[in-house]
Amino acid sequence: MNGDDTADSPDVAGTGDVTLDHVGVATDDLDALADQYAELLGCPVAHRETFDGMAVAFLDFENSYFELLEPLASEGAIARYLDRNGPGIHHVALATDDIEGALETARERGVELIDEEPRDGAWGHDVAFLHPKSTGGVLLEFVQH
Amino acid sequence: MNGDDTADSPDVAGTGDVTLDHVGVATDDLDALADQYAELLGCPVAHRETFDGMAVAFLDFENSYFELLEPLASEGAIARYLDRNGPGIHHVALATDDIEGALETARERGVELIDEEPRDGAWGHDVAFLHPKSTGGVLLEFVQH
Repeated sequence: MNGDDTADSPDVAGTGDVTLDHVGVATDDLDALADQYAELLGCPVAHRETFDGMAVAFLDFENSYFELLEPLASEGAIARYLDRNGPGIHHVALATDDIEGALETARERGVELIDEEPRDGAWGHDVAFLHPKSTGGVLLEFVQH
Repeated sequence: MNGDDTADSPDVAGTGDVTLDHVGVATDDLDALADQYAELLGCPVAHRETFDGMAVAFLDFENSYFELLEPLASEGAIARYLDRNGPGIHHVALATDDIEGALETARERGVELIDEEPRDGAWGHDVAFLHPKSTGGVLLEFVQH
């Protein structure tokens, strides 16, 4: 990594392909919330799985998703979030075609990374989180489908 | 209003036109956050204004927006949010072509409304908020452009 070599750096700002992929919502009752949102907002479940100790459902808003996350154990990030904050908005995920480049751009600009490299996420996607203390208090996720 | 008259009720679930419009972010330094996000994520400022005692900027992700909100006084919902929580994700807004119908559907399904009727929002849009205690801890906004 050469932080001075900006001419050759991935330039997320230049690609124009970062879009809002989903809003992550921590819940203690995924089934009830998925049903309520489907009735209220017309967003069907596009995908469900058990992933990393959580029940996960993606609700389809056509241009993006809600990702509902219910911990299945008392450990883990979502369980801790619920303990501290109760149910609610947990993170915002931005879709990119170049997650490695997006992470490199963030690193070069001094953003603290939670994930230094992409890792396996729900729905078979590659994901990486940025630390909210570097991004205005917002827990941002990069996701590459 | 006739809560039993479901056959004639607006049916948001049937319209399929509710999309994710924006994520609202409370900040104590809008200019710095807008600049950082533009560099990091490639999202230009699509609109700026002073509205309801706040500096407001919409950052364009092509399929949706971040709405940055900085209070210009010590009063108001965003100032209180910052006092309690610090900067971060404040709400999620869903675009609808029929905000009156969306509110009616929410009301019939027992959701507590913060705004019983649509009111003027930023960028000249009609908006109405639902109470997070009725929606899984998520502060949801309906917005009609």
